[in-house]
Amino acid sequence: MSKEYNRKRFLDEFPSLVEELKEMLVQYGLPQDAITWYENSLNYNTPGGKLNRGLSVVDTYVILKGYKTIDDLPKETYKKVALLGWCIELLQAYFLVADDMMDKSITRRGQPCWYKVENVGEIAINDAFMLEGAIYMLLKKHFKQDPYYVDLLELFHEVTFQTELGQLLDLITAPEDHVDLSKFSLEKHSFIVIYKTAYYSFYLPVVLAMYVAGITSPEDLKQAHDVLILLGEYFQIQDDYLDCFGKPEDIGKIGTDIQDNKCSWVVNTALKLANPEQRKVLDENYGVKNSETESKCKALFNELKIDQLYHEYEEKIATDLKAKIANIDESRGFKGDVLTVFLNKKMAGPPSGKTYMGWWGHLGNIKQSGITSYAVSPYRQKPFGGVVEAVFFNFTRRVRTQILYLAIPGFLYYTWWANNVKYNEWLYTKDGREELARINGE
Amino acid sequence: MSKEYNRKRFLDEFPSLVEELKEMLVQYGLPQDAITWYENSLNYNTPGGKLNRGLSVVDTYVILKGYKTIDDLPKETYKKVALLGWCIELLQAYFLVADDMMDKSITRRGQPCWYKVENVGEIAINDAFMLEGAIYMLLKKHFKQDPYYVDLLELFHEVTFQTELGQLLDLITAPEDHVDLSKFSLEKHSFIVIYKTAYYSFYLPVVLAMYVAGITSPEDLKQAHDVLILLGEYFQIQDDYLDCFGKPEDIGKIGTDIQDNKCSWVVNTALKLANPEQRKVLDENYGVKNSETESKCKALFNELKIDQLYHEYEEKIATDLKAKIANIDESRGFKGDVLTVFLNKKMAGPPSGKTYMGWWGHLGNIKQSGITSYAVSPYRQKPFGGVVEAVFFNFTRRVRTQILYLAIPGFLYYTWWANNVKYNEWLYTKDGREELARINGE
Repeated sequence: MSKEYNRKRFLDEFPSLVEELKEMLVQYGLPQDAITWYENSLNYNTPGGKLNRGLSVVDTYVILKGYKTIDDLPKETYKKVALLGWCIELLQAYFLVADDMMDKSITRRGQPCWYKVENVGEIAINDAFMLEGAIYMLLKKHFKQDPYYVDLLELFHEVTFQTELGQLLDLITAPEDHVDLSKFSLEKHSFIVIYKTAYYSFYLPVVLAMYVAGITSPEDLKQAHDVLILLGEYFQIQDDYLDCFGKPEDIGKIGTDIQDNKCSWVVNTALKLANPEQRKVLDENYGVKNSETESKCKALFNELKIDQLYHEYEEKIATDLKAKIANIDESRGFKGDVLTVFLNKKMAGPPSGKTYMGWWGHLGNIKQSGITSYAVSPYRQKPFGGVVEAVFFNFTRRVRTQILYLAIPGFLYYTWWANNVKYNEWLYTKDGREELARINGE
Repeated sequence: MSKEYNRKRFLDEFPSLVEELKEMLVQYGLPQDAITWYENSLNYNTPGGKLNRGLSVVDTYVILKGYKTIDDLPKETYKKVALLGWCIELLQAYFLVADDMMDKSITRRGQPCWYKVENVGEIAINDAFMLEGAIYMLLKKHFKQDPYYVDLLELFHEVTFQTELGQLLDLITAPEDHVDLSKFSLEKHSFIVIYKTAYYSFYLPVVLAMYVAGITSPEDLKQAHDVLILLGEYFQIQDDYLDCFGKPEDIGKIGTDIQDNKCSWVVNTALKLANPEQRKVLDENYGVKNSETESKCKALFNELKIDQLYHEYEEKIATDLKAKIANIDESRGFKGDVLTVFLNKKMAGPPSGKTYMGWWGHLGNIKQSGITSYAVSPYRQKPFGGVVEAVFFNFTRRVRTQILYLAIPGFLYYTWWANNVKYNEWLYTKDGREELARINGE
């Protein structure tokens, strides 16, 4: 059963959820124009991402119950599990709509941010609220009769609150427009990463599947929690590392953490090691929006051997995680395989334009403002530069009957080349960069 | 037991709730600066209003259980009921922080809106989320063991969603900057009023108290619902009427609904009655930010006898409500007195600067932009105008020994008068108008 098939079946569930929500509004007596507005908001903001969080609920349930593929699940069971997956995607939509407003982002998933859409504007705040509201309306409709209904409600409440705590700490620690490195620390970095992303992206999907599967002893929940939070932290540290040290062609985007004053693992590790002189370099150059200051930061990171420290960290954490997973007690029904699947999602081969960002795509990920590239794009190498001119000057040397053999491909090539120049220039705009990130990251 | 005493005891509960929430964040390991931030947001946004919604939970419970005063309640019971009251105030805070951003308001309750406070800005969106989050953290801590815990959760979910539906319809029907009266209708007005305000302001406090009192048969919930929603609609229609027809000195604010393109009962009733010519007057003059167009709308409203229609409506609805309350079936424990108290809050005498807006204070209430006054303020009447000049010109006629009898009171009067002129001018600024509304409305 291919990943693509799983994704398609999951996506196929969404329209019926939208219909259910619309039907609720009809019952309330809401006029049609407002129902259409809500429908548009749901469709614009909820699917369209990588859906990995939602798909993980289904994947985890399949493993826990020992099924081979999602098609082995009874249809009604699939619907319930997929619905919980969509509830995470709604939660994510709620966060992202608001996050884009707080970050003043322009695009998200290759389209304008919701609040940037014509006639939406600040109404997006209320729309975000209503995306969250949909979760509880759907849970009530589909899970009210289940013994774990109240657990689901509490889980969503708590994880939502935790994510907001992480977001708060991030917002007040690393505002894009005010650099104060004395606020940074590895401890804060760890809190932000775990609360802002790991809980809702890793812990939530697995625990939701565990509830439906009836595997909910406190010990099993703790086993899942301890590995998934560590895993989530590791994935984010890898993200931070690659943003600074990865090649753009591998990671599918141009790193911007340094210029954006991000509270990243890289700068926090550097701050911990820096002597007063090196600290001064960071104070003067981190979070400044130009490539020269960025290069100075990078030089310092190399001087401090952050690269090597990362690899040491990665080796240690991977060993730790594998050991923890190997020691999972499966006697009450939980399965280590659930966690192995998560771990393998990231560790299967080196990151590439296709695999890096394939999973994570955390809050604020796409936002890339004030970037100056620090790599020569392959598009800039112009391997056929001058060919068009050559065609022209060599023209008189050609036999007349052969003109079409030259003019037609020449014209085609020129068109292609000119288009590429235009495309390349566009790629250096904010829209273009985000589109590139989207194409590669999806 | 005075109203002031009840209010004070209710207010005294709040600091311990803040402490509980802070303690939860300490348990999560949130760094101190973020804990302080949250504490500030809670204290800035939650108390400070009229607290009528919160106080109504306590009042209703006292009536349902047949107590005489709040001091007759067991201490622990008082704490639980008051906590539910504070949960409504937190819900209101969540709405107001967001609403002020959507409306681009400047002040709220006599202080800058939270998003206008230095260093807050767009972080206010996340702060709003966390005000809502507090509700569920507190409910879990204090009500998890109660049989009606899940009912409380569902009630808050549903009423929150309903309020957001009302807000959505209001935002898309009557944006301040784009007038399109064809979107208006009395049906939409009714939906907006009921969903945006009546559910969380009237229905929610009573039903919360009913749950704690154990009076929760579907019939009793319906009895409460049917009166409270009607009552909420009536109060808002009264608000709309007074905004247009009330005297500023009576209602404690200068009405702005016409200039602000509000989807008010007045304009919707006028739209229903207007002939094509009259409709044209509205199309051209409603929602336009100057006093001339406003006067034309008012003249049309007078022509259409909206005033008289309001009084007919009021008479009918008051009779209906009283009849409904008189017919309440108290056999299962519900009491009509609960509803009478609500009705009397509004109907005890004509509205005045002290009583009008005393209860309601709905979403977006304080916002008053682009106002031009249409009434001669009592401050402008200058009953003692010219007295200072008279003092001066009569000076030589006075006996020298009497100078101090004149100069000192004269100076005092002049100072007082000049101050009043300055104060009066300030009252005509946006800040001043909102402060006036606050003083009178609180």
